[in-house]
Amino acid sequence: MGIVVQKYGGTSVGSLEKIRFVANKVASRYREGHDVAVVVSAMAGETDRLIRLAKDLSPTPDPREMDVLVSTGEQVSIALLAMALKDLGIPARSLLGFQIGIKTDDAFMKARILDIDTQVLRKIFEAKEVAVVAGFQGITEDMEITTLGRGGSDTSAVALAAVLGADVCEIYTDVDGVYTCDPNIYDKARRLDKISYDEMLEMASLGAKVLQTRSVEFAKKYNVPILVKSTFSDEGGTLTTQEDADMEKEVVSGITHDRNEAKITILGVQDKPGVAAMIFTPLAENNINVDMIIQNVSADGKLADLSFTVSKSDYERALAIVKGIADRLGCRDVVGDTSVAKLSIVGVGMRSHAGVASKMFSALSSVGINIQMISTSEIKISCVIDEKFIELGVRVLHDAFELDKSRGEA
Amino acid sequence: MGIVVQKYGGTSVGSLEKIRFVANKVASRYREGHDVAVVVSAMAGETDRLIRLAKDLSPTPDPREMDVLVSTGEQVSIALLAMALKDLGIPARSLLGFQIGIKTDDAFMKARILDIDTQVLRKIFEAKEVAVVAGFQGITEDMEITTLGRGGSDTSAVALAAVLGADVCEIYTDVDGVYTCDPNIYDKARRLDKISYDEMLEMASLGAKVLQTRSVEFAKKYNVPILVKSTFSDEGGTLTTQEDADMEKEVVSGITHDRNEAKITILGVQDKPGVAAMIFTPLAENNINVDMIIQNVSADGKLADLSFTVSKSDYERALAIVKGIADRLGCRDVVGDTSVAKLSIVGVGMRSHAGVASKMFSALSSVGINIQMISTSEIKISCVIDEKFIELGVRVLHDAFELDKSRGEA
Repeated sequence: MGIVVQKYGGTSVGSLEKIRFVANKVASRYREGHDVAVVVSAMAGETDRLIRLAKDLSPTPDPREMDVLVSTGEQVSIALLAMALKDLGIPARSLLGFQIGIKTDDAFMKARILDIDTQVLRKIFEAKEVAVVAGFQGITEDMEITTLGRGGSDTSAVALAAVLGADVCEIYTDVDGVYTCDPNIYDKARRLDKISYDEMLEMASLGAKVLQTRSVEFAKKYNVPILVKSTFSDEGGTLTTQEDADMEKEVVSGITHDRNEAKITILGVQDKPGVAAMIFTPLAENNINVDMIIQNVSADGKLADLSFTVSKSDYERALAIVKGIADRLGCRDVVGDTSVAKLSIVGVGMRSHAGVASKMFSALSSVGINIQMISTSEIKISCVIDEKFIELGVRVLHDAFELDKSRGEA
Repeated sequence: MGIVVQKYGGTSVGSLEKIRFVANKVASRYREGHDVAVVVSAMAGETDRLIRLAKDLSPTPDPREMDVLVSTGEQVSIALLAMALKDLGIPARSLLGFQIGIKTDDAFMKARILDIDTQVLRKIFEAKEVAVVAGFQGITEDMEITTLGRGGSDTSAVALAAVLGADVCEIYTDVDGVYTCDPNIYDKARRLDKISYDEMLEMASLGAKVLQTRSVEFAKKYNVPILVKSTFSDEGGTLTTQEDADMEKEVVSGITHDRNEAKITILGVQDKPGVAAMIFTPLAENNINVDMIIQNVSADGKLADLSFTVSKSDYERALAIVKGIADRLGCRDVVGDTSVAKLSIVGVGMRSHAGVASKMFSALSSVGINIQMISTSEIKISCVIDEKFIELGVRVLHDAFELDKSRGEA
C-alpha cells in the first residue's frame, strides 16, 4: 500500500454528477488502503469564464490580481470534491496552495514550483484522510497567490508525486491515453502503452495537448511515472516513463500536428551580426513566442530571407512589430501567411536510425505536399506545410512509418 | 487626512460596470489623501450560486468545505476591484483573510473575529496603496478558512475600522440610509440622519436588513461610527453613533416589521420547573432559533399555554419536534400559525418616556388590529399580529408617533 497521487482535469469535474463519479473513483482507491492525494482542476469552462471577466473589465488585467481571480476555480472544485467524498463516508480535506505550502517564485500567471512542504500532507495521511489539493496554484514567500500557467494542475500533481515519493502519478482526463496521431484525424491511430519522457516532452510541446510540457520536465527530472487514463473508462492508459530498450526499437512513436501556427517572412535582410537580435528582441519584449526560425543565406551572401512562425493569435501584433523593424533595417519586404500548420514526427529511435528525415520528406512529396520550413531536434522532425494538407500529411506519415503496428512488431 | 474604511455590498459590485463605478468612488477618496481600506462582498447572486451548488451536491455539505467554497465569491470581487483601481492609476492590492491576518474562531459558517493583525495594512498604507480586503472571511489559528455568516462583510469592515482606529466606517449599499419605516410600505418614511448603536442593534435584529447585527455590536464595543450610504448617490446617509442628547428627545426612532415569523402554541402545558427546557433544548439542538416566547399562566395555576415564534423556514421542522415532545409531556394540543408578522417600535427615548406602550396598543386597536403576542426590551416593543395587517400597522404607528417630523421638531 503506497502513496497514490491522482489528478482530475476540468472536464472530469465539469458537473456535480461528474464530481460524484470522481469521488467514487477516489474512494475505491482509498479503500484499497493507499494514502491518496487528489489534485483537481477548475470545473470545465470556469477558468475561461474568470479570464473573460477580467478581460471585459480591464484591457491589461494586473497579473497579481489575475492569479487571485483565477485560482478561485480550483478552490470551488476541491471544496465540492471533499464534500462528495465525505458523503461517501471517506474522511477528506481540501487544501489550498497556501495551506499545503506549494512554494513558487513570484512570476504571476506562469509561476514555477520551488518547493512543497510535505509535513501537512504526511499528517493528513497519518490521520487516514484523503488530501484534496487545488491544482494550478501556489504561494510565494510573501504569501502572494500564484498560478502555474495553463495546464498547471498537471505540474502540481507531478510535483506532489515527486516530493511524496509516490509510485505513480495518475492523470485522469477525457482521453484514454496518448495516440500515435490524433484519432479524430485518422482512425488507424493506435494508443501507446508506454512512451519515454523525452518523446512525451516533444509531443506535448508540438501540440498534443494531453499534458502540460512543464509537468513532463518535472516528471523526467524526478523520475515520476505518469499514467494518463480516461476518467470514465477503466481501459487503456499510457505510461510515460524512463526510456527502455523496447522503445528504441521503434523509429517513430507518434505524429503530431499544430494548426496554431502563422508564418512571417522578412525578405532581403542584411546578413550581418546583430540583425536577428534586433528583430527578435522586440517580439520577446511583447511576450510573443517565436517557434521555428529559418534563415536562408542569399545567393550573393549579403542579403538573406528570414522566416519564423508564431501562434495565430500573436500574428497581427508580430507582423506590425516586424514591419516597423524591417523598415528601419531597410529590408525589401515583409510577408505573412496564416494558412500554415506544423506537422511533426517524434521518436527516440531516430537517434540510432538513419534515413528517417528522407522517409518523411518522400512520403509528403508522394502526395504533392510542399514543405515550407523544416526544423529538427535529436528525437523529432517538424515541417511547416500548407494548412489545408495537414490531415492528409498526418495520414501519409502514419502509414509511411507503419504506426498502426505496435512496438516490436515493426 | 485619516484612515477611511469603506465597505461595498454585493449589489454595489454586482457587475463589471458597477465595479468600475466603485473603483472611481474609492479613487476619489484616495486622491483626497486618505489611507483607504475597502472591504468588498461577493458579486450579487454569487454566494447564493455557490450555496446552491453545494446543496445540489450534498444533502448536508460539510461546514469546513462550505467555507472554502463560498469564500471564493469575495476573492473574485477583490481581484476585479483591484484591477479596476490599477486601471485608474491607483496603486491597489487585494487581500484575503489569511494574507491580512483576520483571525477567527473555528465555528465554520458563523465564525467570530478574534483579532486582526494591522501590520500588513500599515505597510500597505505606508506604500500609499489602497487595501482591497475580502469581506466575510477569516482564518483560524490552524490556517483554516472561515466565514462570518450572512452579512459578515459588514462585520469585517467595522472590525477593520476598529483595529485601524479609522474615523468612520462607511457602508455603501443599495439604500441611502436607515428609515423611520420601510419606504416601500409608507411614503411618509423619513431617513434618519443619526441613530444610536442600541437602536440600530434593535432595528437590525428586528428585520431592518441594513447592517449585520454583529457588526453593530462590534461598532458599539469599539465606538466606531458607521455611516450607511447609497453607493450610487452622494445624498443622504445615516450615521450610527453613540447616543447623544438629541436622540433622547425622540421617544420612538423607527418602526420595523418582519414577515418571517411563524407562531407555535402548546396548549395545556404542565406548569412545573424544567418543562420549558424540555421543549426548547431540542429546538436549539436542531439549530432552530426561537424568537419571542410567551407563557400564559392558566386559570387553575396547573396548566399553561406556551407560545413562541420561529422563522417561517424553520416552522415545519419546529412543529414536528414540538408535537413529539408535547405528546410525551401529555399536553392538550399543539397549534401553529404561519400567517403572522412582527411589528416593532424602537427608540432610546422610551427609557425616559412613559405611556409609549399604551400609545402603541391604542393606535393598533383604533384600526382593529388584534395583538397576539407582546415582548419588550428597554428600547423596543414588539407585537405579533396577523400578517395581513402588517402594512396598515406600520402606517398607523408611523402616524401615531409622528415619525414624519424630524428629531427635535416633535
